[in-house]
Amino acid sequence: MNDKHLNELFEFLSIPSISAQSEYRKDIKQACLWLEKKLKKIGFETDIIKTKGQPLIYAERFVNKKFPTVLVYGHYDVQSPDPLEEWFSDPFKPEIRGGNIYARGASDNKGQLFTWIAAAEDLGKKCELNLKFIIEGEEEIGSENFDDFVNDNKSLLSADICVISDSHAISPTQPLISYGLRGIAYFEIKIETMPKDVHSGIYGGNVANPAIILSQIISKMKSEDEKINIEGFYRNVRKLTKQERSLLSKLPFGEKEILEETGAINVLGESGFSVHERAGARPTLDVNGVWAGYTLEGQKTIIPGVAHAKISMRLVPNQDPYEIEKIFKKFVSDNTPVYAKSEVKTLSLNKPVIMDIKNPYFKKAEKALIKVFGSRPIYELSGGTIGAASAIKNILRIDSILMGYGLPDDGIHSPNEKISLEMFEKGINANKIFLFG
Amino acid sequence: MNDKHLNELFEFLSIPSISAQSEYRKDIKQACLWLEKKLKKIGFETDIIKTKGQPLIYAERFVNKKFPTVLVYGHYDVQSPDPLEEWFSDPFKPEIRGGNIYARGASDNKGQLFTWIAAAEDLGKKCELNLKFIIEGEEEIGSENFDDFVNDNKSLLSADICVISDSHAISPTQPLISYGLRGIAYFEIKIETMPKDVHSGIYGGNVANPAIILSQIISKMKSEDEKINIEGFYRNVRKLTKQERSLLSKLPFGEKEILEETGAINVLGESGFSVHERAGARPTLDVNGVWAGYTLEGQKTIIPGVAHAKISMRLVPNQDPYEIEKIFKKFVSDNTPVYAKSEVKTLSLNKPVIMDIKNPYFKKAEKALIKVFGSRPIYELSGGTIGAASAIKNILRIDSILMGYGLPDDGIHSPNEKISLEMFEKGINANKIFLFG
Repeated sequence: MNDKHLNELFEFLSIPSISAQSEYRKDIKQACLWLEKKLKKIGFETDIIKTKGQPLIYAERFVNKKFPTVLVYGHYDVQSPDPLEEWFSDPFKPEIRGGNIYARGASDNKGQLFTWIAAAEDLGKKCELNLKFIIEGEEEIGSENFDDFVNDNKSLLSADICVISDSHAISPTQPLISYGLRGIAYFEIKIETMPKDVHSGIYGGNVANPAIILSQIISKMKSEDEKINIEGFYRNVRKLTKQERSLLSKLPFGEKEILEETGAINVLGESGFSVHERAGARPTLDVNGVWAGYTLEGQKTIIPGVAHAKISMRLVPNQDPYEIEKIFKKFVSDNTPVYAKSEVKTLSLNKPVIMDIKNPYFKKAEKALIKVFGSRPIYELSGGTIGAASAIKNILRIDSILMGYGLPDDGIHSPNEKISLEMFEKGINANKIFLFG
Repeated sequence: MNDKHLNELFEFLSIPSISAQSEYRKDIKQACLWLEKKLKKIGFETDIIKTKGQPLIYAERFVNKKFPTVLVYGHYDVQSPDPLEEWFSDPFKPEIRGGNIYARGASDNKGQLFTWIAAAEDLGKKCELNLKFIIEGEEEIGSENFDDFVNDNKSLLSADICVISDSHAISPTQPLISYGLRGIAYFEIKIETMPKDVHSGIYGGNVANPAIILSQIISKMKSEDEKINIEGFYRNVRKLTKQERSLLSKLPFGEKEILEETGAINVLGESGFSVHERAGARPTLDVNGVWAGYTLEGQKTIIPGVAHAKISMRLVPNQDPYEIEKIFKKFVSDNTPVYAKSEVKTLSLNKPVIMDIKNPYFKKAEKALIKVFGSRPIYELSGGTIGAASAIKNILRIDSILMGYGLPDDGIHSPNEKISLEMFEKGINANKIFLFG
């Protein structure tokens, strides 16, 4: 392992570039400046591009105008590390334990992104592809401004193929290429019955409790068999072909792996579909957060005035997030009783996407992965969402190859996120082969 | 108004003696020391009594061993002031605006308790009653240690009558005596499906969401007509007599006042009962707080591992909180699906209580209130809970007269709690008449 790469990754990981919370604005800026400096140093021309939200970094290095161009997408923003008390080390002081680097963003996405920067540095001009980087700072908050940027900069981003390492392999000897990504529709609901919290003794029995109303609304969203009850929700869901179902059924993971990775008591999912189908080919609905009233130590005898929930749906082709937004808002409004008012705020809407795996660069990626990991990559439909992959396909018509260098137990979005040192190194090597042959 | 009393009340209100949160332990101590010093200065012998939780203050002043003795109960602890951002002034920097003192505890209970301390000071030895104070520091967290203390100190607390000012009048010209108080059973529920939060893209569709399960359980607790569905919940509820129903129906408040005081969109309550019956004679169930997953700004795409709720029930005679604890725990356990585990922690259990209003001291209280407020007090069943009143009645067999000097819009347990200067002064004067005649 090249110590220089590792030291630099540590520097990058130490910047708490959390995009969801505005108090980290200066760290976002620092992450941009860090990337710009790094990319300049290894021969790229760079540009920090302002958006309505967090800035983007664009960088390019042309070896030969006649060579094809590969666009590398990544993101420098990270998820909030809370609950902090569950981390064994500071999320922004990277630490190596048992062959893994622990830090927020280690796997998602700083570590994986850095495999491409390191490969570009190692190769220098010995590439047989021209390189463009587009690195955003809003992936974890729905890539809100990415579509507009792509629409306005089609020629800047022109490329023959896009590569994204923001997913995972099955194991250090079994690579994985995702050929589809779910979309997302993320909302925040507010239920209000009163403008303030009131005494539960004096008013208990005579006023409506927004936390109970919110619970009732949430309960109505799903049946016990995990079917989503929002009218029209499944209308445009693409049916899997027999061939696809058979292909997915061969993926070497199942209930056992899910239980091991999550520690869940049981697997629970939509009836009539396999674990693999539910993970990538079926849409979902989850409560990501909920809060109302008194949530600290001990007791407080109040009836809250308002209750909130963050609720998101993972969407699959050909669901349209804008259509989902409409029916979700209608559902909440229809289920709000007369003694309450509800508000639904949209936090993000991202389209699902499927790549054309007949694109010849997939073969090139396969070759590189086989050489480094020792086996042919498996193809899967990913359950996650990368808004940028959808924009790059739908607006620029460029396919993305999702070469994942994380592992399933990396704990991305969870406490104690890590990346395996072995995967980090293999990632750099595979990228070098992909870029140089 | 006596400026000295006001200045001293301000001092007392400035101490953030929040019992629910352990970080305020030193403020609890300060409130005790403040009370002890004050009561000593006006001729009382005092004792700070340790408990397993917050200490109690006992004080006595004997004028004449042959005189009857009145026990004054109050509490020095206050509710948490959050949400802080909704206060117009610092909850622990009392401020007078528009004839009211604004501070956490202004009405509940420091201000009302202080009317008795001020009356005792003004009268000095000119009392025709011996005086005992018992002031606790755990009223807002369920008076957990009060029953044990009373059981162990029956002779210390012996008295002919108890007075408690920890409720409210209808208006500054219409006093109110509560002759009954609801009990309470307060619980915290934890639903867990996984030991950690996980990525909603990778695992969404295959693992159970504890926030949804919690919503389902809460939804099942009440029907749409506000009936509580916990089996056996209504079993021991005392039926109101025709006479009582008719008496309660004469109380000069109703839906209009509830809407004005709370700002609620609508009144909502158990079908088949009047506003007054629901407020004091019928049990309730409320969610006091709920939390799970990500609750900060923006979005985080996780499935939480655990979800929590604080849920309390106000109980009426002859419901037994220990019986309610049993059936509530059974309800939660019966409704927890196999893919989750649930835990119910009991935060407090207090019995409901009814006083014998034929006790002659009620007439004495009536006379004092009529003289100061100008009209005969109305009798009501209060919706609130004062654990101590129940212990004093059930263990010592002493009736309590609940002479309320708050007003319905005091906002106790809410932001911007206040006490009216007029009520504070009238309270002191009525107490002086009660104590001296």
